[in-house]
Amino acid sequence: MAHREVVLSTRPAGIPGPEHFTVQEATSPPLQDGQVRVRVTHVSVDPAMRGWVNAAANYSRPVGLGEVMRSFSVGDVVESRHPGYAEGDVVMGMLGWQELAVVGADAIWRRVTETDLPRSLSVGVLGLTGLTAWAGVTSVLRPRPGSTVVVSSAAGAVGSVAGQLAASMGCRTVGIAGGPEKAARCVEEFGFDAGVDYRSSTFLADLAAATPDGVDHYFDNTSGPITDAVVARLNPFASMMVCGTAAYSSWDPWPQGPRMERVILTQRARIEGFLAFDHLDALPDAVAALADLIRSGDLVHREHTLTGIEAAPGSIAMLYSGANDGKLVIEL
Amino acid sequence: MAHREVVLSTRPAGIPGPEHFTVQEATSPPLQDGQVRVRVTHVSVDPAMRGWVNAAANYSRPVGLGEVMRSFSVGDVVESRHPGYAEGDVVMGMLGWQELAVVGADAIWRRVTETDLPRSLSVGVLGLTGLTAWAGVTSVLRPRPGSTVVVSSAAGAVGSVAGQLAASMGCRTVGIAGGPEKAARCVEEFGFDAGVDYRSSTFLADLAAATPDGVDHYFDNTSGPITDAVVARLNPFASMMVCGTAAYSSWDPWPQGPRMERVILTQRARIEGFLAFDHLDALPDAVAALADLIRSGDLVHREHTLTGIEAAPGSIAMLYSGANDGKLVIEL
Repeated sequence: MAHREVVLSTRPAGIPGPEHFTVQEATSPPLQDGQVRVRVTHVSVDPAMRGWVNAAANYSRPVGLGEVMRSFSVGDVVESRHPGYAEGDVVMGMLGWQELAVVGADAIWRRVTETDLPRSLSVGVLGLTGLTAWAGVTSVLRPRPGSTVVVSSAAGAVGSVAGQLAASMGCRTVGIAGGPEKAARCVEEFGFDAGVDYRSSTFLADLAAATPDGVDHYFDNTSGPITDAVVARLNPFASMMVCGTAAYSSWDPWPQGPRMERVILTQRARIEGFLAFDHLDALPDAVAALADLIRSGDLVHREHTLTGIEAAPGSIAMLYSGANDGKLVIEL
Repeated sequence: MAHREVVLSTRPAGIPGPEHFTVQEATSPPLQDGQVRVRVTHVSVDPAMRGWVNAAANYSRPVGLGEVMRSFSVGDVVESRHPGYAEGDVVMGMLGWQELAVVGADAIWRRVTETDLPRSLSVGVLGLTGLTAWAGVTSVLRPRPGSTVVVSSAAGAVGSVAGQLAASMGCRTVGIAGGPEKAARCVEEFGFDAGVDYRSSTFLADLAAATPDGVDHYFDNTSGPITDAVVARLNPFASMMVCGTAAYSSWDPWPQGPRMERVILTQRARIEGFLAFDHLDALPDAVAALADLIRSGDLVHREHTLTGIEAAPGSIAMLYSGANDGKLVIEL
C-alpha cells in the first residue's frame, strides 16, 4: 500500500529544520504475526524530538539517517495480526511521522477509549504532554497546598497544564513566559495567580513581586537565565524539576552559568531530571485525571493544528521559535 | 567561675582566620532552672563553621559579634539544675568554644555512653561528621551493591567515612583528594577501590579510568571543577548529594561553571543538598552503626588533635588549607 512518510535525511547539530527531513512516497509492508497496520490521523510535535535526532548520546537511540522520524501518533487500526488489537481500534503510540504505520504491540502506548473527547488530545494533553505535567507535579514536585509553584514556558503545552494541576492542588502558581501577551495569557487563560514576562527589563523585580514568599517548587522547561532567577529565590526544602532546556538551541559549546551548588546546599533543595518515558506506568492515571478535569472545564488547553504531512519537517523548529500557539499537532 | 572563651570579634567575608576571634577570660554565670554547667573537654572544628560566622543568609542565624563561637563540644556535667542530667554525665552538643558552658537541654544533642571509645569521637566520627556521612549515604544517596560511588574530599573527615560506609554496602568506591599522598591514602588507609588526585594534570583521564562504568552516586564536598568532572560522568538515575562547597572560599562574586541542567535532564539525575542538622533524629542510629564498625575494625578514622583553647581561632582556616590530617578536634 502506497503512503507517505517523513525520514531524517541529514543530521542537525542544533534545532532540526525542514532541510533535515524528506517527505517521500513509500510502500507499507505486509504484516508479520504480532503486528498491526495503523492509518495515522494525527502526529505529535514535541520538544523532545530535538534530542531524538541529534547524534549526541541522549536518553534514547538517535533516529538513524533514512529512518522514519520517531513521533507520537494516533490512528485507526486497519489491519491486525495481533490478538490484542482489532480493526477499528484507536491506538496511540510511537507510530512515527507516516501515514501508515506497521508496528508491534511494544510501540503502542494505549488504546484510546475516551471517545467523547477529540482524538488529537491523545497525543497532547492526554499523551506525553499531559503525562509530563501530571507525573512531574504529582510525583516529582509534590507540592503542598499553599506553597508557591513557579513554571517556566508556562504558556506552553506542558507548562500550562502543570500550572493548572498545581492550582488544582491549592498552590499559588506563577507562570513565566516570553512577552507580555504570553505572560497575560498565563493568568487570563490558564489561571496562574501571576504571569511574569522574562523578556521584560524588570523581570527580576517582577518575579520577586510575584513570589513574595519565595519559591517552593519549580517546574523548569527552560534552563538559562530564567532558571537562575528562580533558583536564587528557592526556599528551604524546595524542589525543582528539570523537564526541558528550551533556553539553549545547542550545548556545544556548553553553556556556563552561576553555580547552583551553594543554593542547593544551604536550602537543602532537591533537583530532579524528568523524562515522561520513565513514567509510562502512570499514563492511565494521568489520562483519567486529566480527562476528568477537561470534562469539568477545569483544564484549559490549546492546540495548534497543522494540516498534512508536508507540514512535519518544519514543525519542530516552530516550537523553538515560539511560532506555535498551543500544543502542536499535525492532522494528516 | 573564671574560664576562657573564644568570641567572634570581627566578621570575615570568606574563610575565618585567627584575626576574627578573641580568646578572653570570662565568668561562667550562675545556673538558671533547667540549665547545666559543662566542663568542656573537647571542641570540634567543622567546615560548617565558615557559614555560621558569615553575615550572608544561611541555614542558621549567624554568630553575633562578641558572642561565643558556636561549635560542637563534649564535656562533663559539673553542676545541674535540669532533672534529666546529673553531675558526671558526659554530654555532647552545641556547647561552643569555651571551657565552661552553661546551657539548657536544647543545646545537648545526646549523652555519650560509649565509654569504651575515646570521648573525642563524639564530636567527630560519632558526631556531626559521622551523622553527615551515615545519613547522607544511607538516606540521600541510597546506593545499591555494585554501584559506583564517588566521594570528593575523600581523605577528609566526612568523605573517608562516607566511602567506607558505601564500601560496607557493597559499592565500588572512588575517592577524589588533593595530591598524590591523599589520593593514595584513600586506597591504603580508607579502603577506597581507587583514589584520584584532582591536582594532577591527568585528573580527567584518571577519573575516567577509575569509573569505567560511569558514576551512580556522588557524595560532593567540594563543588567546582572536581564536581564538573564527576557530573559529566553521571549515569542514568544517578544521585548526587551536595554536602559542602570547599572549592570556594567565597561566593562573592558568585562562581560560574558549566550548567548542570542538561545532564540532570538526560540522566534523570537527582541532586540534593544536605545538612546534618536536618537529620538529628538519625543520630542514635548513626552512632550505633558507626560505633559497631569502629569496634570491629571496619571503620578507619583519623583525628588531628590541637591542644588548648588558644588553638581555636586559627583552626577553621586549617580545614580550608588542607593543613589538618584527620578530623580536627581541640582538646582543652
